[in-house]
Amino acid sequence: MADAGKLDFLFNPRSIAVVGATDSKGKLASVIMASLDNAGFKGKIYPVNPKYDIVKGRRCFPDIKAIEEEVDLAVVAVSSATAVEVIRGATGLVKGAIVIGGGFSETGFNGALLEAELKEISARSGIRIVGPNCMGIYDTISGVDTFFIPSERAKRPGPGRVSVLSQSGSFALIAMEEFALEGIGVARVVSYGNKADVDEADCLDFLAEDSSTGAVLLYVEGISDGRKFVRSATECAKKKPVIALKAGRYSAGGGAARSHTGAMAGRYELYRAAFKKAGVIDISGYEEFIDAGRVFSRFDRALGKRVVIITDGGGIGVSMADECAARGLIVAQLRDEKVERLKKTFPGYFTVSNPLDLTGSATDEWYGDALRETLEGDDFDIAIVAALWGPPALTDALPAILAETAKKSGKPVIICSPGGEYARTRKRLFEESGLPVFSTPEGAVRAAAALSKVPRTV
Amino acid sequence: MADAGKLDFLFNPRSIAVVGATDSKGKLASVIMASLDNAGFKGKIYPVNPKYDIVKGRRCFPDIKAIEEEVDLAVVAVSSATAVEVIRGATGLVKGAIVIGGGFSETGFNGALLEAELKEISARSGIRIVGPNCMGIYDTISGVDTFFIPSERAKRPGPGRVSVLSQSGSFALIAMEEFALEGIGVARVVSYGNKADVDEADCLDFLAEDSSTGAVLLYVEGISDGRKFVRSATECAKKKPVIALKAGRYSAGGGAARSHTGAMAGRYELYRAAFKKAGVIDISGYEEFIDAGRVFSRFDRALGKRVVIITDGGGIGVSMADECAARGLIVAQLRDEKVERLKKTFPGYFTVSNPLDLTGSATDEWYGDALRETLEGDDFDIAIVAALWGPPALTDALPAILAETAKKSGKPVIICSPGGEYARTRKRLFEESGLPVFSTPEGAVRAAAALSKVPRTV
Repeated sequence: MADAGKLDFLFNPRSIAVVGATDSKGKLASVIMASLDNAGFKGKIYPVNPKYDIVKGRRCFPDIKAIEEEVDLAVVAVSSATAVEVIRGATGLVKGAIVIGGGFSETGFNGALLEAELKEISARSGIRIVGPNCMGIYDTISGVDTFFIPSERAKRPGPGRVSVLSQSGSFALIAMEEFALEGIGVARVVSYGNKADVDEADCLDFLAEDSSTGAVLLYVEGISDGRKFVRSATECAKKKPVIALKAGRYSAGGGAARSHTGAMAGRYELYRAAFKKAGVIDISGYEEFIDAGRVFSRFDRALGKRVVIITDGGGIGVSMADECAARGLIVAQLRDEKVERLKKTFPGYFTVSNPLDLTGSATDEWYGDALRETLEGDDFDIAIVAALWGPPALTDALPAILAETAKKSGKPVIICSPGGEYARTRKRLFEESGLPVFSTPEGAVRAAAALSKVPRTV
Repeated sequence: MADAGKLDFLFNPRSIAVVGATDSKGKLASVIMASLDNAGFKGKIYPVNPKYDIVKGRRCFPDIKAIEEEVDLAVVAVSSATAVEVIRGATGLVKGAIVIGGGFSETGFNGALLEAELKEISARSGIRIVGPNCMGIYDTISGVDTFFIPSERAKRPGPGRVSVLSQSGSFALIAMEEFALEGIGVARVVSYGNKADVDEADCLDFLAEDSSTGAVLLYVEGISDGRKFVRSATECAKKKPVIALKAGRYSAGGGAARSHTGAMAGRYELYRAAFKKAGVIDISGYEEFIDAGRVFSRFDRALGKRVVIITDGGGIGVSMADECAARGLIVAQLRDEKVERLKKTFPGYFTVSNPLDLTGSATDEWYGDALRETLEGDDFDIAIVAALWGPPALTDALPAILAETAKKSGKPVIICSPGGEYARTRKRLFEESGLPVFSTPEGAVRAAAALSKVPRTV
């Protein structure tokens, strides 16, 4: 790729100037200064603010020019009019800039004029700009963190293989918090807001070549350059799963999406067509976004849509089968020879079918046997295992047994573990064994459906 | 109602015989003996087992006849063939019986014969039978608890106003655990399994007249007597919201539902028509079941489908508006005079619309003002408030402010609080203030949709 590494100064900067830096608590730049240290950024950090000599124990510069060292990235956390002046003055001094905070096209005519100026400066100077009206970058590889909510309020996720691109900063932040809570790691997260310059396509170009990124999750409200997007998404989706949520799908939401980041929400059908053309997996809503983050942090794809369901609670099995059918997954009957084999493995009163209900007599070994025997051969592509913890014979060894069997099968195995406190505390055992675990039948099935849609080229 | 109180001996028994009682740990009847004490059952408990003289410190009887006192309810936790003999021997001695555990029609021909015997004994003797192949009753009013999973594994919910009827025991149990974890209370829960005698219609008759029950949640796989169901559901739905999940909707799931409780899953369209006729609210899947439990534990209904959305994160607002549109809720624009008033209340850079985005500058007071002013008058029926905790000015006083404003409005207000640890710990503040709080935009909207479907008669 000719473009590979083009945005390296954004994702792996060697040095960052924080414009607007201050020790004054609660200010955006103060949070960002703290976050860069917390996230373990290893490069140089230059506070910039004409009001101070020292910020957070570091020498503070009156402007970027005064730094007199190479600066890869300027993080600009000042009011909108000042931000434009800062970028104008940075020509030739920085490679990239993140313009944090609003006051641009999302607020009306005057803001739109400022944004047009930013665009023009970027085009003329070659400074690549992320934002404005964004939260910028959170990156577990480089240690960059410009998300300006203190970590007490919004815990950051640890390192992982999924990267997130989001037009909405709050959406990205909430997803990150949820990932952090659930032990799901991320590689790189970009909130690009009004995208005066850098857009989802530019980021996809970088992530396509990024060895730290195993899958890309995208939240878009509107895409302005459809051709550019399809070109970049197609290239990225050939190499790794790209999963996209188009928000502002309906007219009511469309109106909100428009005012929120100054983008035309556009017609959902056009987006669906573009996603399909590019090999991008189309998802709906926040829940599917989180589900996708969880499952793609473990698996790349399923080879097809044929699902076997194993459970110890009939009602949950039925619920999962319903949801599979609603989402186009196939809960096919077991082959005759498998039925015969399973009938020999399990007690005579079992109804051996798909879903396979191990009943309240279930043991760890039965789960292992059932998973191994059903996944053997080429008649199923995915297994969903609902482990309800009622049966007294089930022990904390179950997650490792299932993980071992799953690994040998070479097929994705998804865990559904709904219920209360006991189930929640055991979720971590599954995650530690390397199996993605969902708290609802629908969540597990949504994840299976997303896996089954990854194109064969990946 | 002629039938009112007919099943009082099941829901409010004065005395219970536990057949199969034992001190031997892990046995069903041993768990049930402990559960009855834990749940605070105030009536008399008679252990029955010819093998013992004393069980759990109580005198143990060789059979029910030996008790020589009035027994309202027998809880029968022995193997299927023995259970039939116990019920046969209990003629004239008990009013009702719960036959716990399987080995009946769900296991094939021999089991079906035993179940037919049970049915026949019930019809002849007048003993009302719950089950077999069920978990029985969990009741926070009477203190009955025959769910035979120890409370260490499956915490029980506290008292509340929602009652649950479920054909699937595991489904009921998992829902109860989730309710317990989330602080949602229940009134009465019945897992009726194969329903040899007592079915959902009988329970609906009782719950219709039950002052402790404010709403009924129903999980059905198949209904055998459609007319009886519609008659009972219609009467109950006139008095309180009845919300039903029909599982085994699709052919794959249909197969599973059939074997699981020996019921014909039937065709979903017929069920939908029956629900509609009866004024029953039709929901899909586990997630909607839990959402309904949460919202109907707080509210009875909404007067219509017009929703105002208030948020401080644009992307989450857009996501909720999308979901509203997908579910037939109306996110109408604000009236001109409201827009003018709100423009005076909030800063000039605000885009005053629906969803109303209070931005990262949001304060507790802004939330209160926005909720009060948008709900005033008769142009909205429900508010969904997404409180993301990023904005530094938001404090722990927010839940009480919103609750106070909601109460004054007389309209249902639903909270969406997605995110990580910080948001999760604040969920309890909302619940304590009396507002139902959901962790995803979809959950909040599903709840609003369910509320909007309650018929006007309630």
